[in-house]
Amino acid sequence: MSAPKKVVLAYSGGLDTSIILKWLQTEYGCEVVTFTADLGQGEELDPARKKAELLGIKPENIYIEDIREEFVRDFVFPMFRANAVYEGLYLLGTSIARPLISKRLIEIAAETGADAVAHGATGKGNDQVRFELAAYALNPDIKVIAPWRLWDLTSRTKLLEFAEANQIPIAKDKRGEAPFSVDANLLHTSSEGKVLENPAEEAPDYVYQRTDDPVHGPDTPEMIEIAFEKGDPVAINGEAMSPATILTRLNEYGKRHGIGRLDFVENRFVGMKSRGIYETPGGTILLEAHRGIEQITLDSGAGHLKDSIMPRYAELIYNGFWFSPEREMLQALIDKSQEHVTGTVRVQLFKGAARTVARWSDHSLYSEAHVTFEEDAGAYDQTDAQGFIQLNALRLKLLAARKRRLET
Amino acid sequence: MSAPKKVVLAYSGGLDTSIILKWLQTEYGCEVVTFTADLGQGEELDPARKKAELLGIKPENIYIEDIREEFVRDFVFPMFRANAVYEGLYLLGTSIARPLISKRLIEIAAETGADAVAHGATGKGNDQVRFELAAYALNPDIKVIAPWRLWDLTSRTKLLEFAEANQIPIAKDKRGEAPFSVDANLLHTSSEGKVLENPAEEAPDYVYQRTDDPVHGPDTPEMIEIAFEKGDPVAINGEAMSPATILTRLNEYGKRHGIGRLDFVENRFVGMKSRGIYETPGGTILLEAHRGIEQITLDSGAGHLKDSIMPRYAELIYNGFWFSPEREMLQALIDKSQEHVTGTVRVQLFKGAARTVARWSDHSLYSEAHVTFEEDAGAYDQTDAQGFIQLNALRLKLLAARKRRLET
Amino acid sequence: MSAPKKVVLAYSGGLDTSIILKWLQTEYGCEVVTFTADLGQGEELDPARKKAELLGIKPENIYIEDIREEFVRDFVFPMFRANAVYEGLYLLGTSIARPLISKRLIEIAAETGADAVAHGATGKGNDQVRFELAAYALNPDIKVIAPWRLWDLTSRTKLLEFAEANQIPIAKDKRGEAPFSVDANLLHTSSEGKVLENPAEEAPDYVYQRTDDPVHGPDTPEMIEIAFEKGDPVAINGEAMSPATILTRLNEYGKRHGIGRLDFVENRFVGMKSRGIYETPGGTILLEAHRGIEQITLDSGAGHLKDSIMPRYAELIYNGFWFSPEREMLQALIDKSQEHVTGTVRVQLFKGAARTVARWSDHSLYSEAHVTFEEDAGAYDQTDAQGFIQLNALRLKLLAARKRRLET
Amino acid sequence: MSAPKKVVLAYSGGLDTSIILKWLQTEYGCEVVTFTADLGQGEELDPARKKAELLGIKPENIYIEDIREEFVRDFVFPMFRANAVYEGLYLLGTSIARPLISKRLIEIAAETGADAVAHGATGKGNDQVRFELAAYALNPDIKVIAPWRLWDLTSRTKLLEFAEANQIPIAKDKRGEAPFSVDANLLHTSSEGKVLENPAEEAPDYVYQRTDDPVHGPDTPEMIEIAFEKGDPVAINGEAMSPATILTRLNEYGKRHGIGRLDFVENRFVGMKSRGIYETPGGTILLEAHRGIEQITLDSGAGHLKDSIMPRYAELIYNGFWFSPEREMLQALIDKSQEHVTGTVRVQLFKGAARTVARWSDHSLYSEAHVTFEEDAGAYDQTDAQGFIQLNALRLKLLAARKRRLET
Repeated sequence: MSAPKKVVLAYSGGLDTSIILKWLQTEYGCEVVTFTADLGQGEELDPARKKAELLGIKPENIYIEDIREEFVRDFVFPMFRANAVYEGLYLLGTSIARPLISKRLIEIAAETGADAVAHGATGKGNDQVRFELAAYALNPDIKVIAPWRLWDLTSRTKLLEFAEANQIPIAKDKRGEAPFSVDANLLHTSSEGKVLENPAEEAPDYVYQRTDDPVHGPDTPEMIEIAFEKGDPVAINGEAMSPATILTRLNEYGKRHGIGRLDFVENRFVGMKSRGIYETPGGTILLEAHRGIEQITLDSGAGHLKDSIMPRYAELIYNGFWFSPEREMLQALIDKSQEHVTGTVRVQLFKGAARTVARWSDHSLYSEAHVTFEEDAGAYDQTDAQGFIQLNALRLKLLAARKRRLET
Repeated sequence: MSAPKKVVLAYSGGLDTSIILKWLQTEYGCEVVTFTADLGQGEELDPARKKAELLGIKPENIYIEDIREEFVRDFVFPMFRANAVYEGLYLLGTSIARPLISKRLIEIAAETGADAVAHGATGKGNDQVRFELAAYALNPDIKVIAPWRLWDLTSRTKLLEFAEANQIPIAKDKRGEAPFSVDANLLHTSSEGKVLENPAEEAPDYVYQRTDDPVHGPDTPEMIEIAFEKGDPVAINGEAMSPATILTRLNEYGKRHGIGRLDFVENRFVGMKSRGIYETPGGTILLEAHRGIEQITLDSGAGHLKDSIMPRYAELIYNGFWFSPEREMLQALIDKSQEHVTGTVRVQLFKGAARTVARWSDHSLYSEAHVTFEEDAGAYDQTDAQGFIQLNALRLKLLAARKRRLET
Repeated sequence: MSAPKKVVLAYSGGLDTSIILKWLQTEYGCEVVTFTADLGQGEELDPARKKAELLGIKPENIYIEDIREEFVRDFVFPMFRANAVYEGLYLLGTSIARPLISKRLIEIAAETGADAVAHGATGKGNDQVRFELAAYALNPDIKVIAPWRLWDLTSRTKLLEFAEANQIPIAKDKRGEAPFSVDANLLHTSSEGKVLENPAEEAPDYVYQRTDDPVHGPDTPEMIEIAFEKGDPVAINGEAMSPATILTRLNEYGKRHGIGRLDFVENRFVGMKSRGIYETPGGTILLEAHRGIEQITLDSGAGHLKDSIMPRYAELIYNGFWFSPEREMLQALIDKSQEHVTGTVRVQLFKGAARTVARWSDHSLYSEAHVTFEEDAGAYDQTDAQGFIQLNALRLKLLAARKRRLET
Repeated sequence: MSAPKKVVLAYSGGLDTSIILKWLQTEYGCEVVTFTADLGQGEELDPARKKAELLGIKPENIYIEDIREEFVRDFVFPMFRANAVYEGLYLLGTSIARPLISKRLIEIAAETGADAVAHGATGKGNDQVRFELAAYALNPDIKVIAPWRLWDLTSRTKLLEFAEANQIPIAKDKRGEAPFSVDANLLHTSSEGKVLENPAEEAPDYVYQRTDDPVHGPDTPEMIEIAFEKGDPVAINGEAMSPATILTRLNEYGKRHGIGRLDFVENRFVGMKSRGIYETPGGTILLEAHRGIEQITLDSGAGHLKDSIMPRYAELIYNGFWFSPEREMLQALIDKSQEHVTGTVRVQLFKGAARTVARWSDHSLYSEAHVTFEEDAGAYDQTDAQGFIQLNALRLKLLAARKRRLET
């Protein structure tokens, strides 16, 4: 790979990406464009602008954007239509944010004439894969620079030395080592590494930042009603809201009740296991509610097909294949299923749990006329079950007859 | 079907199956054998014997058996090895008990020379299918009699009239209509019908019988440690126990903390939707713990394959195909995966939720040496990720190049 | 079910459906509307009109239609986009025609104010299921009458007696029993029953009606070029044609070269096995060519996903679930994959076999620059394979290390 | 990776692996052990011994083995039990041989105290992946040396110069460039590269080496009968044979009739497409016959489950994951299904095609009593179909009713 001339860097404003910024300038003598996104991670973006300027980035090369609505509308919600869960439990909060960041990096590269993009993910994790697969899928000729796989700043000490040597301001609390590493966006906060590396040891309380301890949550359950249209939530307790606003509101509910904590050991795409603490307060409520509305609006053929392809869909997102033909094909299948997933769900929130307790819809397929224990006025003919069972049993009888025949 | 001569009846001792007993005698003039099983439903079995005798069943035709250990060891545990969940949420507590009952009915029919078996399931539900598919799979020539699909006792009034006309004792509390219908065994209690038939209305508190209200559960979390061997739980807090004992103990923990309540609308195999309240206290804890131990002992290839076939496996059990080649094939696959699922999980129980917080095992595949944020002494070469990503990206680049080529 | 007042009958004009026509009039005293479709079965339709008139059907109640284009465009081609094959070998020629016939029956019922439809399929086969599921999916209130499951004309003798008693003309060659039963349309001809019922005996030569014996086919291979657009064939040897014309033309090629014969034992949806002889001359060529064009235009992610869902898609069509949410969801997935399946395939036809020998496309993903054995000018960096293999191997190494650890 | 001290080389005796042998000695100064296997590739192995000796390999370091029986019994037959086909058409002839070679390399390394193995696969293909994943799965600490990814002998000229400089004898016909590259074993011969690199051009006739041109095959069909036990072929025309002998014999039949030619563009695991000519004469017959015997001995539940997991199983073998938990899990599932796949199939061989025309078995599930068009004496009750269809239709009716309700 020839040296890049102009690089768009995914820039948080923090110490690590500031070091990367400087390293890119130093290593390649290249122009750097910074991209700082508000994905709902809960940090001020203004300091990032100031810091970029301080590090010599030209004002026209500083991109700071609020992309929360796009994030929730075009990435989070489509994923939740699938009830996507990785390895049975993880709601993919980090995975789903990466392709959007890459998309903006590539778009900004096109606008600014940059020939490369750079990110701050390490060589051990999934995020490097997600950033880079998305980038290459959108621009096959882009150069991707992953300094953590390239440089020799392999210890905390060396990083700090580099920062000092290059006049990069170091916040006092960054002098020491953080006891664990954090990623956050509007959907979730994940924590991993350091004090969490031994999966036999419980995570310390201070790791949980996004949700209140369920022990201290309200002592009485709270009910909320979430309305859906075509698979996406559109209102809470009757109040219509934008996608990002809904997720924000659900996060507040979830935080208060301590909902969405997960202590998890997962299989990374790069082949190793890792342990993380995930907090997905609003997403956990949303998943529960979405399942609730699907229960009455999706028929079994549609539902079972969705269930059967879900693990593959989730794996694709986890592994970084958001921008791939197979993810798009599965999305077409999923979206097709959601045409009637419209209605309202009542969810009970209490001490760490969200539980559907009622649901209704004009699109409901539930037929009290059929299921009733009372006289059903001919809606359902019980003698039909006889033939249904006989024909389902036929092959089993033939198998049993063979067994008997061969044994005698 | 010619009239049966001798029928083995799945007999609970309750009013409904007593009426069936009498009806069989009356309708066919046939000899009846009763089979009453202790599956952990929490009812005394002695009254069933007395009632059968009262209805004229010969002592040698009265079978009363405690089959809890067989139930848990050969049905419940194999199913939990798969993390089987139907339609995302239901732990299959009723479904898994039916094939065992059918198996014993068929075995007793062979021992007593009976040519038929009978059950008390209605023509609208799944249980008739489960009973009968299992029966036919074990004896292709057996006659199965389902009185609810045959007789004209189609209302409560007619049933009570028949009972009175035939001197069947009616407990006082059975005079009135039960407000909902219940099925129970060691794994779960399900409630459905009547007051539960409108899924838009919350279930009344009195429906929950198997678990304490989480609101009234202990105010501090409780920790338990569950040890597994080859995928099955073998000890709690270091105390080794038999399968049924372990499940019983987990049920006690779960009950106290209000764990395992589910308000659910599901798709029945017979084509309609129904709403049920399920309580699976011990099973909910077990599922969480089993997932926890798999997290460190199963590699991603095994785990993802299991996840992808699980919905199908669960559907087979739900639909009544326990004794089918495809269920046995899937079981062979699942059991093969469990050879190293050995180790211990610590689970936190609190106000309705069970959550894994630690896990350890001699069979662990988790490698702190690889995953560490610290210097890894060469365990993992970060530059390998470069090639890994490049080759995973190659087809995406070719796709992107095509797109660009066709657009210009 | 109350008696029908007006019935739309799927009417071939043959003896069996003429008997059904009369039986409907006699049994229910109802008005009958006949629907006779040209699906490419190769029979004159005019005689059907005359026969219907003879049996007292009013001219405005006689529907005779050429639906070949709709059949191929909206049913056959969408199915071939999936490379659908049932149980490894069967191209679903009968299955795919049934939903279209039902669709027209229901539409005509709406036009004519009929409250029922009727078909001539027996109670043992799949076709009854396909007809009726499609009918109910399009009109939940329609009555479906399947005389073969209802009447007592259970032998050839009784049928002929009924025909004679009702002045139904009997062609001389219908007096005797046909040695096997035939279904045909533009996609295929199937034969089953009677002389074919023992799968251990070879089918007699005279069963094959749609294809010439490969032994007598041309002694030199013939090449044809089939052009595709978005997954559907649009031209042969450069000549653009309508869907039905293309399939007709491919049938001619296939017939001459004896292509598409299949001797098959399959699992019917109703639980038994049956043996059939299928001849699908044009379809066999089309499947081969479609696979050929996908080889260069579909990437592995899309192709493997398609392959993995294909058996389920084929099973749905075989079982009669064309008009179901899950078939439509899978179709959305498949159609999404075909956006670039555009290009041309050269197929060699010879003595029973069709074999792709060349393919090219502007949409090709094949990159000679990458795959070449020659110097590739940096298109591909072989050292990338090192990292790719190392990370794919990591979990296998961890498994091997565990095995070694536990054994020592 | 530190330099290897002793390397076991997969050695064919040809020019390329002789150069590798020398290069290993030169580059690392290490001891080399050669392993030459008879996998049925049809080459003399004695010259390999002489050549190894000539290149200075000690006699005790020369391993020459006939592993054809192990290859067919433990690798080919288990794979054929699955009807494994990659991307619809490829019978995996190369893929299935690689893990066995790696297994022997690792075993010999253990016997000889070698710390490394080496192979002659390039950095562009799948074989490097297959060799190395298998090696690491069997010995996590082994070093694997892939000279083609390491050295600078990147042109034919440089290779020949190295050979000459190192006194490696060069056969006259190796002076020029081969027009394509070949791999062969008892299952198949594959050809790729050079003259085959343009998939729009037909392969020249001289590429086909393993099968006679169908045009010149016998002008009359030939019938053979293949007997199976538990899914594996055990006899041809009544003559019992060992696994390798059966495959050899089938290859002879297939060669004569020109069976098993495939012109194919496939997706390599490393991300690019490649075009190959595969000849699998015996394997093509075997696949057809295995499907034939499964048709009568496997029930639909087992068969459809097998079909649905087959693409994944084939992909695992293609990608090199033979020694992985998920392949072993799938194998357990497949093997479970084969317990009754016992019986005999008659296959017609003619001009490039193998076609099942009859099959019989004591384990047959085919029931003429059920399927007959004649009076079936009560084996099957056609009225059962009514209920079967009604309950399968119920959800479709509910969907149709919703549609109607929402439209009005």
